[in-house]
Amino acid sequence: MKLKPIPVDVVLAESTVLLSEKDSTQMGVKEGDRVVITGNKTVVAVASYGVGVVEDGSIKIPSSLLEKVGTYRDGTVNVQYSHKPDSVHFIRKKMDGERLSKEQINAIVEDILENRLSGIEISAWLTALYINGMDIDEIADFTMAMANTGSIVTFSRKPVFDFHSLGGVPGNKITPIVISIVAAGGLMIPKTSSRAISSACGTSDFVETFCDVELDANQLKTIAEDIGGVFSWGGSMNLAPVDDLVIKIEHPLGINPRAQMLASIMSKKVAMGSTHLLVDIPTGQGTKVPTLESAKSYARDLMDLGDRIGMHVECAITYADQPIGNAVGPNLEARECISILEGSKHPSSVVEKAVECAGILFEMAGIPNGAVKAKEILDSGAAYKKFMEIVVAQNGRPDLKSEDLKPGKYSFDVLASHAGYVHSIGNKQIVMVAKAAGAPSDKGAGLMIYKKKGQRVEQGDVLMTIYAESESKLQRAKESALANRPFDIEGMLLKRVTEVKPI
Amino acid sequence: MKLKPIPVDVVLAESTVLLSEKDSTQMGVKEGDRVVITGNKTVVAVASYGVGVVEDGSIKIPSSLLEKVGTYRDGTVNVQYSHKPDSVHFIRKKMDGERLSKEQINAIVEDILENRLSGIEISAWLTALYINGMDIDEIADFTMAMANTGSIVTFSRKPVFDFHSLGGVPGNKITPIVISIVAAGGLMIPKTSSRAISSACGTSDFVETFCDVELDANQLKTIAEDIGGVFSWGGSMNLAPVDDLVIKIEHPLGINPRAQMLASIMSKKVAMGSTHLLVDIPTGQGTKVPTLESAKSYARDLMDLGDRIGMHVECAITYADQPIGNAVGPNLEARECISILEGSKHPSSVVEKAVECAGILFEMAGIPNGAVKAKEILDSGAAYKKFMEIVVAQNGRPDLKSEDLKPGKYSFDVLASHAGYVHSIGNKQIVMVAKAAGAPSDKGAGLMIYKKKGQRVEQGDVLMTIYAESESKLQRAKESALANRPFDIEGMLLKRVTEVKPI
Repeated sequence: MKLKPIPVDVVLAESTVLLSEKDSTQMGVKEGDRVVITGNKTVVAVASYGVGVVEDGSIKIPSSLLEKVGTYRDGTVNVQYSHKPDSVHFIRKKMDGERLSKEQINAIVEDILENRLSGIEISAWLTALYINGMDIDEIADFTMAMANTGSIVTFSRKPVFDFHSLGGVPGNKITPIVISIVAAGGLMIPKTSSRAISSACGTSDFVETFCDVELDANQLKTIAEDIGGVFSWGGSMNLAPVDDLVIKIEHPLGINPRAQMLASIMSKKVAMGSTHLLVDIPTGQGTKVPTLESAKSYARDLMDLGDRIGMHVECAITYADQPIGNAVGPNLEARECISILEGSKHPSSVVEKAVECAGILFEMAGIPNGAVKAKEILDSGAAYKKFMEIVVAQNGRPDLKSEDLKPGKYSFDVLASHAGYVHSIGNKQIVMVAKAAGAPSDKGAGLMIYKKKGQRVEQGDVLMTIYAESESKLQRAKESALANRPFDIEGMLLKRVTEVKPI
Repeated sequence: MKLKPIPVDVVLAESTVLLSEKDSTQMGVKEGDRVVITGNKTVVAVASYGVGVVEDGSIKIPSSLLEKVGTYRDGTVNVQYSHKPDSVHFIRKKMDGERLSKEQINAIVEDILENRLSGIEISAWLTALYINGMDIDEIADFTMAMANTGSIVTFSRKPVFDFHSLGGVPGNKITPIVISIVAAGGLMIPKTSSRAISSACGTSDFVETFCDVELDANQLKTIAEDIGGVFSWGGSMNLAPVDDLVIKIEHPLGINPRAQMLASIMSKKVAMGSTHLLVDIPTGQGTKVPTLESAKSYARDLMDLGDRIGMHVECAITYADQPIGNAVGPNLEARECISILEGSKHPSSVVEKAVECAGILFEMAGIPNGAVKAKEILDSGAAYKKFMEIVVAQNGRPDLKSEDLKPGKYSFDVLASHAGYVHSIGNKQIVMVAKAAGAPSDKGAGLMIYKKKGQRVEQGDVLMTIYAESESKLQRAKESALANRPFDIEGMLLKRVTEVKPI
């Protein structure tokens, strides 16, 4: 059917066009069906009824799409019913609990990337994945399919080491320390990190306070091959870009199906050419992995998947029942991280975790007593030297000092209301307070936590200081701290058991 | 955050607004999250990033939504993050395979009706229902929740009989015959029908060729209580309107979860105040119910559900391996239907099915030998008299004759290419050809089928005639007949088994 296109200035994720109900019925098109639109070129879009806003004989079409398709000489476009892509049938198969072949998985991933599946269809796909899952061979195919949707980086140096944290615990600023130690030890570890998704501060959020993180593939390759280490933001690399499209649908549903989560992590490592990968699995209340049992199950999955796709994967299950170290928030985490590289032994939990992780990476490279070697490299200042080489290569200041990183100028001390022992510090609550203070977009926003689990506090002791860049955000963070109460302080006697009397 | 609203002239099913990425981050809003928008009034909408089309400090908002919300005196609106409605958590529960309570089911149904759930969320709901299902008590709660979203009709006459066909077989024009017989027998049966969804001709599509079907609740009540029978289109009655919203999401996914299907049918009967319901389950290849086993399972479900909601439900499993009668398409089906009421004994398959169904309804009312009574009423002309009373009450012509209903003036005979026996007639293929000819929107479009299963045909015999209202649609239907080949003609010997020789 020939229709007059009316451009509308709205760009949505999906290519949706509006048709009149009468024209739609005439063409046999129902809401949610696809139509092929032909002018100079041909595009496929999802049809919706524009009840009351589209006249018969016309089609409302986003301007950007109309530019792409053009019109005939008479100013019209041709519109026709289009069949569903095959991938919709493969999604149905997964809904029916069936296994998918490599080709079927490829088709789904490609159609998501090319915008050929609507939000409704991707939602059904993720729900089916969440309920019916995938076996490890399907996940391996899924991983490779996702990796192949974006750039693939190839290094002339081999092997390629990598380090990944599942995240979920605040204050986890070990990545630049691990990378600096491992690169100083002679290995190549081109690390790409992410910005915060739901946390208060991702690795890239604090690294960008002292050097550039938005490197392109060539810059990353050059720095990694020359210096051994790099701290890049993965988002600028076009790695497995289909993942970003899926996250948009996962987020409102509040789900992250296991198959999708594993393929999402591993596809980016495949795209980076990683041959040896250490995965840190922070385990504890309020993180993504609450129990040791679930941590072991993730570790098994990741290692099995590594086997299938030819990558040497090891996992470190790490303690994460409370924030790592003292600092939370971009500038504060950067300061704590750099001070350790400068020689500080505190906080020891950060130092130990970084050394242990670097040690495992050395052992994966065949170097014995990895942790001892990692400790030597950190203590000798070799890691600091390597760190500064990387910082300078990424346009950081050659005279960078940890004290350069300043907290926001508005601050508030949270005091203990009564004496006792710190019984718990809620990871989720800490994140909420830091975000209320403005982290991660306000670089000076965050928290310094002075008391950790099991420590004795007296009434009036400072438990933590909240920093913000504006008075209003400080106020918001104070309110959040009051509402969420991240600290739980109790007497050492948790519960008094009275004598059991006979009934 | 205060933003300047920019109206856009697009109305989508969902209330979607576009924000800049920077403003969204500032507010802690991610794509797919909800925002509360406040001006004169307060509304909730789903947020999307308008990359490149929304400036910081502004919000693009559909004009209709902006009219509803209004602005502050300074022309701005206030925008804030809003939590997901509780129903999203209940959808998650179903995804996790759990049972839902009545209150939880009510919340989901209400939020779908009030546009508080996005397409992505409804898609996850339907997918979870498809995979994890509901038990019969949940379905009963679901049915009542859906019924309560719309109008409830109450009759002063009781009991209220009803008749429903699951459909899926072309040519099934028995409804006006059944209603006329039953009403002539003294029962009240206020029947609401649907238009075609995927078929070539729904009951309302052919009834509206000879009388009005868009009655409001008062008209329907008056006619039913006075005359006993009515042929109304359910769509004009606002019965369980949430169903229409769900169908829009089911359609692109190509699913109709059992729980949704049962609740969809039964909620409309509850809304119509039905106390006694007969369900016709057409069973055969190419219908919704291909095997006797699946038909029995539907029947059990419907009767169990009837028990739970206090409705007397019986089911008739009917033969549907080929089209019912000879005519397919609005005018042609109307002609065949009326001619039987006028006294024609042909096609006997239509007569028999109508008489059997009316007979079961009589027996549900406690009248013995229902089929005998139904036959008497049809043969005596009492059913025809009742039919004409209903037609006139619905503004049909008092001198209506079956011959008034004319096929389209363009026609084409499909001939047998070789002699043999009709081995099968494909229901789906017949529907495709009739739709290609223009049914159901072109009232004269359709087919007359002259040869049925098991009949002997000679080369050159006319198998069916295709009718259309334009030459181009006739051409399209011819091509469809050629491509889909609805008739399968074979020699009586289906397969010759040759002597089995030893290897």
